Amino acid sequence: MSNRISQDIDPSEAPPFVHKVGKPPKQKLLKEFTSTVKETLFPDDPLRQFKDQPRSRKLVLGIQSVFPILDWGRNYSLQKFKGDLIAGLTIASLCIPQDIAYAKLANLEPQYGLYSSFVPPLVYAFMGSSRDIAIGPVAVVSLLLGTLLREEIDPNENPHDYQRLALTATFFAGITQFSLGFLRLGFLIDFLSHAAIVGFMAGASVTIALQQLKGMLGIKDFTKKTDIISVLRSVFKAAHHGWNWQTILIGVTFLAFLLIAKYIGKKNKKLFWVAAISPLTSVIISTFFVYITRADKQGVAIVKHINKGVNPPSVNEIYFTGHYLSKGFRIGIVAGMVALTEAVAIARTFAAIKDYQIDGNKEMVALGTMNVIGSLTSCYVATGSFSRSAVNFMAGCNTAVSNIVMSGVVLLTLEVITPLFKYTPNAILAAIIISAVVGLFDIDAAILIWKIDKLDFIACVGAFFGVTFISVEIGLLIAVTISFAKILLQVTRPRTAILGKLPRTTVYRNILQYPEASKVPGVLIVRVDSAIYFSNSNYIRERILRWLTDEEEHLKENHQPRIQFLIIEMSPVTDIDTSGIHAFEELYRGLQKRDVQLILANPGPNVIDKLHTSKFTDMIGEDHIFLTVADAVTACAPKYQEA
Amino acid sequence: MSNRISQDIDPSEAPPFVHKVGKPPKQKLLKEFTSTVKETLFPDDPLRQFKDQPRSRKLVLGIQSVFPILDWGRNYSLQKFKGDLIAGLTIASLCIPQDIAYAKLANLEPQYGLYSSFVPPLVYAFMGSSRDIAIGPVAVVSLLLGTLLREEIDPNENPHDYQRLALTATFFAGITQFSLGFLRLGFLIDFLSHAAIVGFMAGASVTIALQQLKGMLGIKDFTKKTDIISVLRSVFKAAHHGWNWQTILIGVTFLAFLLIAKYIGKKNKKLFWVAAISPLTSVIISTFFVYITRADKQGVAIVKHINKGVNPPSVNEIYFTGHYLSKGFRIGIVAGMVALTEAVAIARTFAAIKDYQIDGNKEMVALGTMNVIGSLTSCYVATGSFSRSAVNFMAGCNTAVSNIVMSGVVLLTLEVITPLFKYTPNAILAAIIISAVVGLFDIDAAILIWKIDKLDFIACVGAFFGVTFISVEIGLLIAVTISFAKILLQVTRPRTAILGKLPRTTVYRNILQYPEASKVPGVLIVRVDSAIYFSNSNYIRERILRWLTDEEEHLKENHQPRIQFLIIEMSPVTDIDTSGIHAFEELYRGLQKRDVQLILANPGPNVIDKLHTSKFTDMIGEDHIFLTVADAVTACAPKYQEA
Repeated sequence: MSNRISQDIDPSEAPPFVHKVGKPPKQKLLKEFTSTVKETLFPDDPLRQFKDQPRSRKLVLGIQSVFPILDWGRNYSLQKFKGDLIAGLTIASLCIPQDIAYAKLANLEPQYGLYSSFVPPLVYAFMGSSRDIAIGPVAVVSLLLGTLLREEIDPNENPHDYQRLALTATFFAGITQFSLGFLRLGFLIDFLSHAAIVGFMAGASVTIALQQLKGMLGIKDFTKKTDIISVLRSVFKAAHHGWNWQTILIGVTFLAFLLIAKYIGKKNKKLFWVAAISPLTSVIISTFFVYITRADKQGVAIVKHINKGVNPPSVNEIYFTGHYLSKGFRIGIVAGMVALTEAVAIARTFAAIKDYQIDGNKEMVALGTMNVIGSLTSCYVATGSFSRSAVNFMAGCNTAVSNIVMSGVVLLTLEVITPLFKYTPNAILAAIIISAVVGLFDIDAAILIWKIDKLDFIACVGAFFGVTFISVEIGLLIAVTISFAKILLQVTRPRTAILGKLPRTTVYRNILQYPEASKVPGVLIVRVDSAIYFSNSNYIRERILRWLTDEEEHLKENHQPRIQFLIIEMSPVTDIDTSGIHAFEELYRGLQKRDVQLILANPGPNVIDKLHTSKFTDMIGEDHIFLTVADAVTACAPKYQEA
Repeated sequence: MSNRISQDIDPSEAPPFVHKVGKPPKQKLLKEFTSTVKETLFPDDPLRQFKDQPRSRKLVLGIQSVFPILDWGRNYSLQKFKGDLIAGLTIASLCIPQDIAYAKLANLEPQYGLYSSFVPPLVYAFMGSSRDIAIGPVAVVSLLLGTLLREEIDPNENPHDYQRLALTATFFAGITQFSLGFLRLGFLIDFLSHAAIVGFMAGASVTIALQQLKGMLGIKDFTKKTDIISVLRSVFKAAHHGWNWQTILIGVTFLAFLLIAKYIGKKNKKLFWVAAISPLTSVIISTFFVYITRADKQGVAIVKHINKGVNPPSVNEIYFTGHYLSKGFRIGIVAGMVALTEAVAIARTFAAIKDYQIDGNKEMVALGTMNVIGSLTSCYVATGSFSRSAVNFMAGCNTAVSNIVMSGVVLLTLEVITPLFKYTPNAILAAIIISAVVGLFDIDAAILIWKIDKLDFIACVGAFFGVTFISVEIGLLIAVTISFAKILLQVTRPRTAILGKLPRTTVYRNILQYPEASKVPGVLIVRVDSAIYFSNSNYIRERILRWLTDEEEHLKENHQPRIQFLIIEMSPVTDIDTSGIHAFEELYRGLQKRDVQLILANPGPNVIDKLHTSKFTDMIGEDHIFLTVADAVTACAPKYQEA
């Protein structure tokens, strides 16, 4: 029974054309290290275009790579400008009311929203590589910033300190973004899974919409918490004291108008501009209406005051020392990462549609620089806005010039017409926010996630409930935690499969996927579907032994011959570490006791190299390693293969 | 040029026996969920033996599974007891001096070490499933506990509070271990990589040895820090005031004796007992020597006082409320996890040598119960000791009865002879600790790690330097961080490979590993070596496009025909999520623009299922998905395959 395979296989009898398992040429340590670093940090090979260029050309390329505008600007034409002008005007009309509203979400004075739509888009236009993104304040980041800042300073008691902390957080958000890009660590944002983002965004949209009930219903005494229970309690408590009916009338009417306009724009893509200009239209009409009826004297809350003039410098406002430095730093990191995730997702989406390349890391450097400069010029965290970018795209933008156009319109607004916003009712701003965040609640994406991966769906729902029922931070924490848990699960519990031979081929496949595949008598073929590392080596060893035990029990019941050979198909095993090799040694010893021979099929270059180094190949015998499962089966069960 | 593949392949012309890619039968949601949970938490199928048993038998099996002694105890024989008795006496002789020494490492009175070698081994003998592990206090955990506790309470100023906190930490260490096992989360300890453990242990051994310089040199005023720089500074500062030469003489003489005994035991496995009894011999000789010469009056530090009698109960000592509860909890978790890692590694090692099964989770329940009961009976954290377990094994232990024998000897010691230890010089204890921890510095393991995986080696060295130059905690933190970083790197940067056809076969392999493999003209075959998840989907898409760009540039230079087909070998891709599918959609669109057709080969059951659900198969066309790369190549380049 214990016949060694080496006796079974006589090399002269071996079938022709049996290739040996290849051992790749040994790489020098430095070369190996360099290539690992390159694959990890420079997978997109950003220096490709610099190769074999004279020094002066390298300099030009270097400057162009920091300021892509110098590259695409040379081919800029009037034709392109036409598209950019229309798109720029459209997003400007959309961003002005949104900016004022989002600033309120961040508990800042309304002009800060406009400031943040003036400087950052300009900086981005020079440094960014996305052609479709629309830069400015966004709802989710404003809410997140507002929540985190309010925990440190009360914006009503200490508005100036609060402002200073907001600018400090913006500065560090920019530094975080810049550093991630510069150090080529941009891949870190990939650790937030798509499903978690969908859930987080949906939760944030619900939270933001609920917050707007304050403005929509004209409630004065509103909770500072953001969870759904506190908010609803606050809303119904206020009902006793009476909501302001004039406010409700204005709010509901215009919300209906905005939502209908949005629906029209969605149904007929050519009418997207109806949705795009509806917020500004609402603001103009409602402001005019309040001004002539003096509804503000009836208790309709209005913007009241909004500073005129362009961004004041704010270097002196940032806390570079003291107690608030570390708080601003921490808040900046969180807000910066979330803003980054949103911007990069947008840039990638539109780049894929129009088929151009986005370098994630370079994009982060651009966004970081933009926020650092922003923080020095009274702007709070700006990033790419989903809704405005989509409008920008549909309005036919060609380059980042549309951001420059928008920035110009915002400049004009700041210099000339801000005082006119004095009578804008807060209810309109609330309606604009609600109609904007409705789009963040992506039910279709959630359904698709449910269909594709139930675990992903749990992450999505977890993040959603975390945001709506607890707080934005907890929701974000849940999203990150579940994302990580999924990664860890993936590496601790890799899949294994039993293979069978597809009839009339030499192809071996998972018998669960191909029920027609048949097992080879006396041979168990297991495929391990992952690199074998410390995190999963014990599991893999135990799982393989369990497959064997299961199979042996089954054979015994059916009085069939016992398993003599265990073939491990190693094709998917791309790497192995010391723990993995220990697990294999233990597996080998365990199998020896059970009188089963261990055979490996198709180990990859890294694996065969490490098996040699650790002398495991000597332990099981070189003749127990085959190029393919078919070769291994031929050696183990020659009669079967012939049949 | 843009001929669709569907036009190329006429089903009637297709070669015979082409299998379709199988779609596994749809599982019910609940079943899918159950099987995922089972694979994650019960991969070892612990309930297998309960299947199809009557209820009474299930109860018996259940009790036996909590107390394995009821199972193996029935077959226990006098023959087995002979081995266990000898092994038990040997490890008792080794553990008594070690216990006293280790208690000092944890800043506790010497009797606490003996207490911890009395109760915990007894509990373990009833509940544990390892036959070779020797339970008791160990050096690394004692040092870790001592360091962490000292940060909260000074053991010299408040010895009683310190003791109470130590017992509290022990209680929570036990609770942590029990919970991990009970909730079947034992796999969490697999996240500490082997390499990190090797480095951490080596660092801890150096730190512990350095700490012993105090006792060896008879220094009174010694630093409380554990890093190498503080310790050496402290040692040389004390040199000015004079070291105690009598202490040094005793210490160095016996250290030499212990190390020689250890060397003899290592060289000749039959003489292992020489090393095993040398510590007790040293203690007896040196104690007698000090007693007759009254060297303690010359400045030789001695144990002085050691309580007589068995463990007093200590339920009332544990902080169940107040300020120290949370501190004890935190320290307990850390110490419990480290103790667990050590015990489980030992249990697995010896189980593999003797070929029996260890259920990691059940083992954790046993260890946890043991430490909880220990904390109620004045014991501090006990776990499996590497050195004593090895001696236990070599002395021929058969079952956990050797632990009961050891426990009995410790009981006798506590009741009868502890007062005799009064004159034991501290230098001997220091020498015993040094000779014990020398074995933790595993230079061979480090060399093997260097050979096999350079990144693992960095983890190893990082943990080592962290412990020696900063502190035990920081070293542990570095070990955990690097282990996690490696896992994250693995999932963000999976490997990809270009495949070529091995001459005279239909086998496609990595051309870097098999230089004889040849590329197929007009076709690029890329294998993706990992599941495609949110963490790597962008990378994979970009990397595939870069392979294509590289190849196209190469072909252009050599004036060869362009790539028309991109075949992705999906065998190693075990799963895909929504982000992965998005990446594929983007890849498909990108390829369409470049007039290259996307073809998939051998997607696994989960992948094909999800590709169908998300309608990606409709997007690229069912006829672009093949069972094998060979089939795909036949369809793309029929002439080549025939040639």
